[in-house]
Amino acid sequence: MSNYTELSTLGEFGLIDHLTKTIRLQNPSTLKGIGDDAAVLDYGNKKILVSTDMLIQGIHFDLTYTPLKHLGYKSVAVNASDIYAMNGIPKQITLSLAVSNHFSVEGLEEFYAGLYLACEKYGIDLVGGDTTSSKTGMCISITVLGEADEQDIVYRNTAKENQLICVSGDLGAAYMGLQLLEREKLVFQGDENAQPDFAGYEYILERQLKPEARKDIVQQFKEKNILPTAMIDISDGLASEIMHICKDSGIGCNIYEEKIPIDYQTFKMAEELNMNATVCALSGGEDYELLFTAPLEHYDLLTAMPGISVIGHTCKASEGCYMTTRDGNTFELKAQGWQNFSSTTAAGESENKKAKEDR
Amino acid sequence: MSNYTELSTLGEFGLIDHLTKTIRLQNPSTLKGIGDDAAVLDYGNKKILVSTDMLIQGIHFDLTYTPLKHLGYKSVAVNASDIYAMNGIPKQITLSLAVSNHFSVEGLEEFYAGLYLACEKYGIDLVGGDTTSSKTGMCISITVLGEADEQDIVYRNTAKENQLICVSGDLGAAYMGLQLLEREKLVFQGDENAQPDFAGYEYILERQLKPEARKDIVQQFKEKNILPTAMIDISDGLASEIMHICKDSGIGCNIYEEKIPIDYQTFKMAEELNMNATVCALSGGEDYELLFTAPLEHYDLLTAMPGISVIGHTCKASEGCYMTTRDGNTFELKAQGWQNFSSTTAAGESENKKAKEDR
Repeated sequence: MSNYTELSTLGEFGLIDHLTKTIRLQNPSTLKGIGDDAAVLDYGNKKILVSTDMLIQGIHFDLTYTPLKHLGYKSVAVNASDIYAMNGIPKQITLSLAVSNHFSVEGLEEFYAGLYLACEKYGIDLVGGDTTSSKTGMCISITVLGEADEQDIVYRNTAKENQLICVSGDLGAAYMGLQLLEREKLVFQGDENAQPDFAGYEYILERQLKPEARKDIVQQFKEKNILPTAMIDISDGLASEIMHICKDSGIGCNIYEEKIPIDYQTFKMAEELNMNATVCALSGGEDYELLFTAPLEHYDLLTAMPGISVIGHTCKASEGCYMTTRDGNTFELKAQGWQNFSSTTAAGESENKKAKEDR
Repeated sequence: MSNYTELSTLGEFGLIDHLTKTIRLQNPSTLKGIGDDAAVLDYGNKKILVSTDMLIQGIHFDLTYTPLKHLGYKSVAVNASDIYAMNGIPKQITLSLAVSNHFSVEGLEEFYAGLYLACEKYGIDLVGGDTTSSKTGMCISITVLGEADEQDIVYRNTAKENQLICVSGDLGAAYMGLQLLEREKLVFQGDENAQPDFAGYEYILERQLKPEARKDIVQQFKEKNILPTAMIDISDGLASEIMHICKDSGIGCNIYEEKIPIDYQTFKMAEELNMNATVCALSGGEDYELLFTAPLEHYDLLTAMPGISVIGHTCKASEGCYMTTRDGNTFELKAQGWQNFSSTTAAGESENKKAKEDR
């Protein structure tokens, strides 16, 4: 190697594009490779969806305040979310796990207990894995396989102009939960007798420590015969994900700040920390809600669905990607992306992110 | 957690059994979960094989002497090997990769170049992944998907008494290559001007740094219409793998030391290091050769196949698992397994091992 280019030069998405741009698919059974929430494989009647996620201690979780049972649960939920984001049903996972010998059997039991609980909840089988020792921290890698009929699969590059933009649940809470945990950790480090004070913030903590994948939304789509035109799960913040759909679909968008669903506890925590709750929703990450587009004629159906908010509409690519603020101004959306490889991190941006080759 | 049991208490296999014994499979499409080289899924005409492997810096590889291109190649090969060990054909992989920002773009390019080279060689598509930063070392997790017709899949628990035991290639070379690399690393650390001396040992180095999966053997099985009765790939040493087949199939075995295929360079290196080459073949690991059983009537067919050695035969479980040495003594086989979690490591045993839930 004669050259040395720092990883930060290319940035998150540039790096992955750079490394994967030469891929040439060889197998007819590979319908879709890198470039969405999951790959799509063709092995018969049902199509197979595959996605993978890696969680690294010190980057994605902090064992100071993350119970291992919650971590096991979350590891499955975030993977299941990628399959739901394709409008599919997760069916199997494999788990690769590296731990140092500082871990106890009981600790791993807790981790597996959470993992099994999530498997039970989402109807997933753990079908294989690899357990190894690590010289340093814990490393969790899960691959999830799911299924869907071909006509039901929803990609992220198929949104059209003049369609509704919708999200499930509420946004920014997981990020605020993380900020609260980090604050209480600092308090704790300053005074060992201090007890963390989480009263009134149970919801945002749960959103951070034990997120759920939106199986219920995908089920409702099926029951109500709704097929989104494009869909993605919100792991890196609303702005980043909406930009993915727009860029991949060749369209623009206009969303309305006042329509973005944000929980009361998220607002309250943001106020306490002098942060802007909308910024947290746009850039916070780890919400694992579904962002999707749908034809205008589904408006009544969608607004009648519990937990769905219509937050804007798509438009021509030439009109750009904008948010109309509460005071009527417009503001161009920017995907913050993931800055772990950068030397500086923008204020208010979660450290707790990762790049996915599935964007 | 009120209790604290050290991981070493249960040992490698005990730990995994302990953590996975309660698994209840939920999906009809899951034909086979944990317990073989790969899981078997049913999604239509072909069956799907899934396997996963994690490689951790400092445990499975040492970047002091491992070129990143070789590492990328090896990461794919060891996963492909698990699918060949089921008599299947690998088709897709997902890659999760964690690297610190000490890595350069050129370094990752080298890694991917090796990965793509192996994908090309084995006809595999990279269909997804996750790239993240790491605070410490490099962590590679690959999941491989393969296919096979149901009647062609070879498990490890289906060997019968009075059958042939065969291996492909030769054994112990990868372990000797590792010992050589470790020795030259020490020399180098002692004197910075010293150049490592690998002359005459190119083969064992290549077996360690750039192993191949035995695609050719599986192809030959198909061409010659041979269906092994049980099969496993040799990642943890011959003794450990033969014990897996015997235990899972409820049989015993007798193998002959003089029949175990060992390369001249392996013998030479072992002699230089005052080690026993047979012990290296039995317990060294990372050979990625195929160990299989076959009916006695295939003897002529198998001995005529290039690169296949018949090393013994199966017998009743009550007769145990033995090796007949060159001098005519018998010696009970012991699976050394993986001792990374133990506080002490047996002399002559590779540090370079991992536990797989697929045993």
